[in-house]
Amino acid sequence: MLTEIINGIVNNDEKIKKESRERVDNLIKPKGSLGKVEDLFVKLCGIYGEIVNDIPKKAIIIAAGDHKVVEEGVATSDKSITLFQVNNFTKGLTGVCSLVKTSGADIFVVDVGVDNEIDNPKVISRKIKYGSDNIAKGPAMTYEEAVKSIEVGIEMVFERYNEGYRMLGVGEMGIGNTTPSSAIISVLSGISPEKTTSVGANLPLDKLANKVDTIKKAIEVNSPDSRDPLDVLSKVGGLEIGTMAGVILGCAYKKIPVVLDGFISVAAAMIAKGLCEKSVAYMIPSHNSKEKGAILGMRNLGLEPYFDFDMRLGEGTGAAIMFNILDSAIYMNSTMITFEEAGFRVL
Amino acid sequence: MLTEIINGIVNNDEKIKKESRERVDNLIKPKGSLGKVEDLFVKLCGIYGEIVNDIPKKAIIIAAGDHKVVEEGVATSDKSITLFQVNNFTKGLTGVCSLVKTSGADIFVVDVGVDNEIDNPKVISRKIKYGSDNIAKGPAMTYEEAVKSIEVGIEMVFERYNEGYRMLGVGEMGIGNTTPSSAIISVLSGISPEKTTSVGANLPLDKLANKVDTIKKAIEVNSPDSRDPLDVLSKVGGLEIGTMAGVILGCAYKKIPVVLDGFISVAAAMIAKGLCEKSVAYMIPSHNSKEKGAILGMRNLGLEPYFDFDMRLGEGTGAAIMFNILDSAIYMNSTMITFEEAGFRVL
Repeated sequence: MLTEIINGIVNNDEKIKKESRERVDNLIKPKGSLGKVEDLFVKLCGIYGEIVNDIPKKAIIIAAGDHKVVEEGVATSDKSITLFQVNNFTKGLTGVCSLVKTSGADIFVVDVGVDNEIDNPKVISRKIKYGSDNIAKGPAMTYEEAVKSIEVGIEMVFERYNEGYRMLGVGEMGIGNTTPSSAIISVLSGISPEKTTSVGANLPLDKLANKVDTIKKAIEVNSPDSRDPLDVLSKVGGLEIGTMAGVILGCAYKKIPVVLDGFISVAAAMIAKGLCEKSVAYMIPSHNSKEKGAILGMRNLGLEPYFDFDMRLGEGTGAAIMFNILDSAIYMNSTMITFEEAGFRVL
Repeated sequence: MLTEIINGIVNNDEKIKKESRERVDNLIKPKGSLGKVEDLFVKLCGIYGEIVNDIPKKAIIIAAGDHKVVEEGVATSDKSITLFQVNNFTKGLTGVCSLVKTSGADIFVVDVGVDNEIDNPKVISRKIKYGSDNIAKGPAMTYEEAVKSIEVGIEMVFERYNEGYRMLGVGEMGIGNTTPSSAIISVLSGISPEKTTSVGANLPLDKLANKVDTIKKAIEVNSPDSRDPLDVLSKVGGLEIGTMAGVILGCAYKKIPVVLDGFISVAAAMIAKGLCEKSVAYMIPSHNSKEKGAILGMRNLGLEPYFDFDMRLGEGTGAAIMFNILDSAIYMNSTMITFEEAGFRVL
């Protein structure tokens, strides 16, 4: 199934991009004066393959999983926070739940690797196993589990697409998941873990060196093959990161935009890019995460974040804010008229 | 009236800021992980003097006026565009009309200096005169007209406040108004016009030197007193810039946030700051305008823009986008709960 999806991803529609740029250039404003808002509109049109006039139904897919590498002391929060927050998403109480209010986006939580039983019918259960294994000691998961984690993400997109969603954001919840994310970004970019690793959810600075060492050890112990993204994901990744990569690939296949979030989503996007270079054209970055490796990964993807609010929460919070900006870009086209339509003769 | 307003502006409520910071620190997320969104919430609480729980009713006040300095060849667009756009605001067709859709903000247009008769009951008529005079030849307006232009802005705030609005943005329309804005920023900051002047609404690059020379000439001919903001406004400013300064002062007096826009709003904010230093605490910057003088003026105000989308349209478009982010900050508090409220014991 994964191979079929990857082979089915095509380039953006360049003809529509040109057409939409022409329209934007003629709206009643100085040419180019809405800057990146104009560019975003053109990008959206290229993704959808049509001039966009309607605000799309939107959702954030939150993939959740635990990481046994927390045994190495790489996170301060207990893994019980993962379970706690998974339930809080369904009650509408977390950060991302608050930030989707302005755009009216929905939230879907899928459990692929939470290391607890989840007794909550609002959580989509696709548990592959109880936590990704400790990457400092061996692979996070088998190759088959890596493929499965991605396929869950694709499946999530297909279900949402059938429900009418036409713009998705990627989010995650998983105590410890900045560690495999740093490992993935380092392996796929060739940048050392010192440069891709920060404190995540407030790890005390004096424990940062241990986190970096753990990531180095994970890479050494597992020897991931940087030319094979599935090998990288299975050896030093995490289940929910695979699912996020699947959401990205699923959106690219369905020709709908996928809004990236922060650090973890960049690692997932690099896996997706490794599997299918063309998928990058469907990714829309949002914020620059405070985790210093995020911008390095973004640049490796050839993307630049649109804003930087010093955020480092994850959950899809950056994507949630970006939804408003994308809606604004669509409203620009649907609300404004051209000088010609207004009957104005430019002097 | 202006003196009374200026004397009535007080500092933000530091006690409430501390209280709101404590609450934000205890919401179910790593402390500080929503970065500037958290800071914005604290800032809003300090401005309102209470913990904000409700999304405020919002509007953008667009002040409109023409500038006879366009005779000097500092703008490519004809002044008829000012009239054209003033009418288009009331029909909901311009850039800012499209960008307020996501936040549901209303738009009010006030004519203080359009150099045309306006036959449109939806435009608030407070015309002081038909265009600010050519600053390259003499003052833009009299001292009394400068005071009057500011008082119109204050009046606009009071009316909106009575209608229930609790957050305002400043916008403008006026072909040629980047020229007086550069002049104001240069005079009040001491930075040369070469450094504060860009191409505005697509002035051809080969005409930029003439624009800079015109601004220098305006400063030379009028000798504005940089210690007297009213003298600066009357000599090298513009009527709608005065009204924007009045909107800022009115908001500060009423203890409601005023969201800045781009370059012209920075010039207005510097006039407001010159009249009342305390008013700065009520200003919320939005984007960094593509006009290079904007960031210099922002820094003079001690403010940093929140985002940079290469925009340079004016009208209040940056403020419109910022409204969503401020709403998000409020939703963060009203939607999220604290670890304690959730009954979670942090390990």
